[in-house]
Amino acid sequence: MAFENIKELVDEYRKVWSINYAISLMSWDRETYMPPSDASIRGEVIGIFSEMLKEEYLKLNNLVSKYQGKENLSDEEKGFIRVLNREIKFYVKVPIEIIKELNKVTTEAVVVWREAKKESNFAKFKPYLEKIVELERKIADHLGYEKNPYDALLDLYEEGFTVDDGDKVFNTLLPNLKDILQKVREKGYFPETHPLEEVSYDTKDMEKVNMEIVKLLKMPEDSFRLDVSPHPFTIRISGNDVRITTRYEGKDFKRTIYSVIHESGHATYELLIDKNLEGTPLAQGASMGLHESQSRFWENVVGRSREFIHLIYPLLTKYLDFVRKYDEEEIYKYVNTVKPSLIRVDADEVTYNFHIVLRYEIEKKLINEEIKVAELPEIWNDFMDKYLGVRPKNDSEGVLQDIHWSQGSIGYFPTYTLGNVVAGMTYSAYSKLKEDISNGNIEGIKEWLRERICKYGAIYSPKELLMRAFGKTYDPEDLLRYLREKYLKE
Amino acid sequence: MAFENIKELVDEYRKVWSINYAISLMSWDRETYMPPSDASIRGEVIGIFSEMLKEEYLKLNNLVSKYQGKENLSDEEKGFIRVLNREIKFYVKVPIEIIKELNKVTTEAVVVWREAKKESNFAKFKPYLEKIVELERKIADHLGYEKNPYDALLDLYEEGFTVDDGDKVFNTLLPNLKDILQKVREKGYFPETHPLEEVSYDTKDMEKVNMEIVKLLKMPEDSFRLDVSPHPFTIRISGNDVRITTRYEGKDFKRTIYSVIHESGHATYELLIDKNLEGTPLAQGASMGLHESQSRFWENVVGRSREFIHLIYPLLTKYLDFVRKYDEEEIYKYVNTVKPSLIRVDADEVTYNFHIVLRYEIEKKLINEEIKVAELPEIWNDFMDKYLGVRPKNDSEGVLQDIHWSQGSIGYFPTYTLGNVVAGMTYSAYSKLKEDISNGNIEGIKEWLRERICKYGAIYSPKELLMRAFGKTYDPEDLLRYLREKYLKE
Repeated sequence: MAFENIKELVDEYRKVWSINYAISLMSWDRETYMPPSDASIRGEVIGIFSEMLKEEYLKLNNLVSKYQGKENLSDEEKGFIRVLNREIKFYVKVPIEIIKELNKVTTEAVVVWREAKKESNFAKFKPYLEKIVELERKIADHLGYEKNPYDALLDLYEEGFTVDDGDKVFNTLLPNLKDILQKVREKGYFPETHPLEEVSYDTKDMEKVNMEIVKLLKMPEDSFRLDVSPHPFTIRISGNDVRITTRYEGKDFKRTIYSVIHESGHATYELLIDKNLEGTPLAQGASMGLHESQSRFWENVVGRSREFIHLIYPLLTKYLDFVRKYDEEEIYKYVNTVKPSLIRVDADEVTYNFHIVLRYEIEKKLINEEIKVAELPEIWNDFMDKYLGVRPKNDSEGVLQDIHWSQGSIGYFPTYTLGNVVAGMTYSAYSKLKEDISNGNIEGIKEWLRERICKYGAIYSPKELLMRAFGKTYDPEDLLRYLREKYLKE
Repeated sequence: MAFENIKELVDEYRKVWSINYAISLMSWDRETYMPPSDASIRGEVIGIFSEMLKEEYLKLNNLVSKYQGKENLSDEEKGFIRVLNREIKFYVKVPIEIIKELNKVTTEAVVVWREAKKESNFAKFKPYLEKIVELERKIADHLGYEKNPYDALLDLYEEGFTVDDGDKVFNTLLPNLKDILQKVREKGYFPETHPLEEVSYDTKDMEKVNMEIVKLLKMPEDSFRLDVSPHPFTIRISGNDVRITTRYEGKDFKRTIYSVIHESGHATYELLIDKNLEGTPLAQGASMGLHESQSRFWENVVGRSREFIHLIYPLLTKYLDFVRKYDEEEIYKYVNTVKPSLIRVDADEVTYNFHIVLRYEIEKKLINEEIKVAELPEIWNDFMDKYLGVRPKNDSEGVLQDIHWSQGSIGYFPTYTLGNVVAGMTYSAYSKLKEDISNGNIEGIKEWLRERICKYGAIYSPKELLMRAFGKTYDPEDLLRYLREKYLKE
């Protein structure tokens, strides 16, 4: 056993682990099978469990200090202490009054945001966002940082990722993506829209397609589930119980298929983590960015490849009559339309990261008090105009579109692009990938990912893991090369 | 709020309540949707939660003593303290070594019992049962009793129910049931078997029938679920989230229908408990017997009545082709076959209680050391022979048929008959019942049950609740009258 020097910590962590286990199951059930009347009780119980979690973390905080700086620890033991300290950090460093205030504000803010979005009324949401930014700034101060307060917030989601890193990534991406987008549009091979987007499907048929896709992706029947929920998500109950969901909107079938492939990517990461790490804080992805790299690798690099379309074409035509009049190449175009659009979650591979550059710049400047909340709508709309050539008609399709800020998540958005960046790095490093997809060698792909990335769980920080896997950290050049190769045949 | 004098207790109980909530959900999920690989991890997490529960109870034990004997408490407050003391009792009075030993023995015994049952090998199970009986006797001593050690065990499942009560109930039932059974068989109106028992059904059709039955029983969509599991059960997550399961065996459709009606009876009890009791130990049934009275009232008294068959006949014939060639009266006979049989769980209304009398007598004598475990097979088989005229060919269809003893549940069986007894009392007291069933006035029946019994939860002990509802406690005469009326037209 890899944790013999910190056995006491491992034993004590068992309670945290089981509380998290129960919270995960309660959360999954809330989105899938819970009778609606139980919603507020469920919220209360999860709240009580979060309190219990905090108590346990504070107990562990006293214990973990004994092991700080201890020598001759294994990588797993060092990782355990590092991640545990990260989990505790928020409770220990941020005064309880601030946490409570943030909880209070965000609980209200989510409700207000929903109304404001519906009414396209930014003024309504503005005071809440101002308060949230103010609190997040305070939190950054309490958490501590070396150069930039935004670093402290970025670190909550992507350990060790800083504004220096972010500027490098986003400053490289922006002009290059602009160039790629322009050329894709000039070439005209990938259409902006496709007639299949308007075609309705029967949910029962679609469920069969998704079950076949999950089978094709070799998702293990005995430790995996696919269910239905309003918003697709992945949740780990344990390493032997990872669940995803999708939704059926009734038309434009690529939406449900690619949500299944995306979430299966997240699930695959969880399922490939070394089972010996179960019950420790290491049984999770290395970071949000690394997690997203797996989902986007499967969704985009694998799932939207020409080879994958060849693989799934027979099962699409088997269950979906209306697909039969399109050939494989046409389906390839359908799943790879490129169109500058207003809404992040609907964006394609080429335009997606523009949406994130915008949010990164706004968050960075907000936290550094270089811009004011009141200015956001205009900054937002100008950026969209300048880089994507589309301008929101109102704030609900602009600055109000995402829930994240209302929940107090500032620093989260960049991890979406980091996911794309690392997926690109994976594509570059994996020379046999196209061959493996062509041959339907999904197990081979999983083995590759397991050995390079997944099995380590959170033993190493994301930067260290990337260095071990690729010899470099977040390098956007690979993503750009991937996009040029796929979309420009360069 | 009805608990203002014990606010501190109510607040502290919140943790117990939420731990139980999570355990319930994890248990439900284990039987329904959990991927099989997670079984042992799930067991471990539930074990950790049970430990947490115990810790919380011990904390509450210190607190509750402050309120003991306090005056001017409301019925709810007195009930809270009474039930909390009952929940704590086991942990406080029984030495931890005995609890641990019992857990150890029963964990093994369940496995051994399963093998012994399969092999029909009582000798294999015998040493485990001997150990369990010995431990249960010790537990009875630690729990304390006035007259009979078996009283202490009965009280765990049916508060205040004693051997004096039990002897009165079972000594009245035995000769009378014998008389009724003989006459039913002489009359010959209710057949022993029915051709429909051999007819296979399509599970999809059957699911539709069950959904319609649940609708007909007015189970509330927003706080109730019906799912599938290997063994049907009811579980309360909260008063706004009560779930039942059924199973589909592929033939003899009454089995799945009546499991749905039975479990819906349990669920209805939980759903009718006053919502203001949520979060307290009073938000549960008054006892196992009372709970079983509700399930059996719905299953047998309502569900197997001629009037109910009239009500469901249209939906049976709508979905099940093969029912169309039988008329209502024939379906009534099909769901009310009477046949002395070896297996308790397959028994009908007339013969069911014989099985319980036998188990009650055996448990009572075992705990009082009047018989030995080694003698059980013979005692068992002789009783079956004498009272039901059937003799087990082997112990797997005799003394080894039930899981209960292997789990350490001694004192539980009698509550099944108490359920029938109280269902009979309910029938007697409810003069408009047949009219309400005929009119499909299910809400009316629920209102009657709510006001008489259900809304009180566990505020009153079962005996006090019965006195309030019926002016008497466990009176078997009503059950006998019900059976004579139904089966003998007397």
